[in-house]
Amino acid sequence: VTEPCAAVVLGLGLMGGSLARDLAARGYRVLGWDRDASAVESAHRAGVVHAGLSDDFGGIGDADLVVLAVPVSAAPPLLEAVRPHLHRARLITDLGSTKRSIVAAAEVLGVGERFVGSHPLTGSHQSGWEAARAGMFGGARVFLCPTRSSSAAAMAMARELWTSLSARTEVVDAAEHDRLLAWTSHLPQAVSTALALALASNDVARGELGPGGRDVTRLAGSSPEVWTGIALDNAQVLIEAVSAMETGLCGFREALEAKDADAVRRFFARAREWAER
Amino acid sequence: VTEPCAAVVLGLGLMGGSLARDLAARGYRVLGWDRDASAVESAHRAGVVHAGLSDDFGGIGDADLVVLAVPVSAAPPLLEAVRPHLHRARLITDLGSTKRSIVAAAEVLGVGERFVGSHPLTGSHQSGWEAARAGMFGGARVFLCPTRSSSAAAMAMARELWTSLSARTEVVDAAEHDRLLAWTSHLPQAVSTALALALASNDVARGELGPGGRDVTRLAGSSPEVWTGIALDNAQVLIEAVSAMETGLCGFREALEAKDADAVRRFFARAREWAER
Repeated sequence: VTEPCAAVVLGLGLMGGSLARDLAARGYRVLGWDRDASAVESAHRAGVVHAGLSDDFGGIGDADLVVLAVPVSAAPPLLEAVRPHLHRARLITDLGSTKRSIVAAAEVLGVGERFVGSHPLTGSHQSGWEAARAGMFGGARVFLCPTRSSSAAAMAMARELWTSLSARTEVVDAAEHDRLLAWTSHLPQAVSTALALALASNDVARGELGPGGRDVTRLAGSSPEVWTGIALDNAQVLIEAVSAMETGLCGFREALEAKDADAVRRFFARAREWAER
Repeated sequence: VTEPCAAVVLGLGLMGGSLARDLAARGYRVLGWDRDASAVESAHRAGVVHAGLSDDFGGIGDADLVVLAVPVSAAPPLLEAVRPHLHRARLITDLGSTKRSIVAAAEVLGVGERFVGSHPLTGSHQSGWEAARAGMFGGARVFLCPTRSSSAAAMAMARELWTSLSARTEVVDAAEHDRLLAWTSHLPQAVSTALALALASNDVARGELGPGGRDVTRLAGSSPEVWTGIALDNAQVLIEAVSAMETGLCGFREALEAKDADAVRRFFARAREWAER
């Protein structure tokens, strides 16, 4: 290519900001937008974002790559808002933790051919531009979720994008993705959060915890906005997963109430078997 | 002192083995015992344990310091078994995660003056002699739980022991200790374990988890024997704590079922407030 690729990153928080850093480092001309103008200014001052995007999204027309990096509840309406400006975009993707809604929205909005959803399994409990860092996707597993009509060219471009950042891509159906993630990611987040609230309700400060308790509650510090969107978007499967967790805790509590040493031992022993598998 | 202090460490797992390493490094003559003779052999070969102790505990009579480092359910009967041999012991302590039972046992067995319970807030989800390491107590918080009759000399010796290992001691009533730890340590352990079982029940392998889920389930790999004892010994308070956790999860699930975005947001937002306090 004779001129550098142009990318638009919509949302400059932990994920979008980190991707913008990596794209800029690879020579992309990055245009940025964020609901919070100060994030765009910071990214511009850091030399990551070439220019901000006006709120009418007019400048998006020259971009080859358009990335939605906003909470999952905000992504479909944002895609609808930028839809009229996607003249040159060859790949439109997102970074959200749920995939059914955004993949369906891309189809409905008529950009299914050029859309491939991305979910990089990396991040942090921290959030915002300040938490963004270069190289965050290196070594990460990235789920790619095509629409029913994603073109081979868009798929290839999505693979190349992530491979160039040293991530490992894996193609999975969006519904299957959301079902898996409800268990592997959304349930652990809910559990860590509920534990934090149980401790808060008993006036136990985080500083009282040992290293184990700190690990289990680390995710409780995650962005409420990001996680409210994910939980609502994936509510159906997450309800099942939370129920299974409630059942397990209830069984443990009943074993304690009955002073059933064998049942208590099985509770811990079966978990260790799983942990060591 | 003209001759080195002699210590007996009963139980050479993660905690006892690590303490034996530190005591040997500080010039103690360490006698060791473990239910598993191969742990004693390994500790002897490693130059940590000077000699093993026969199963009749005869050799304990010369020890200045006697440490019980076995699961909390095994500690009271072990103290009873060694009781006839505690001729020279100036400090008898333990390393267990619950303190009421062992402190009460020391009083009943007539060694309350020389007994001070210890609970170092350190460790790992790993267990056994192989996991023991020197320096594990450095920087750790150690709760000291006296009996009703602990002597000033025994208290001073317990403080010196832990301070010499760079730990920070804190004196707390045994019942208060157990109530606090039910929330700060035993509940996080139960939650991590129950999450592992919920994932196992849905055939989700640990390798499927991202970094967050791995943190939340790390404790699930802990020793079933150690934790069965702790959970049963502290059942009364732990039942309360598990109930609070169940209530929190149930509230979250109901908010999802009702699609109550405000309630879901409050769930995540209040946890982050706690995490950032």
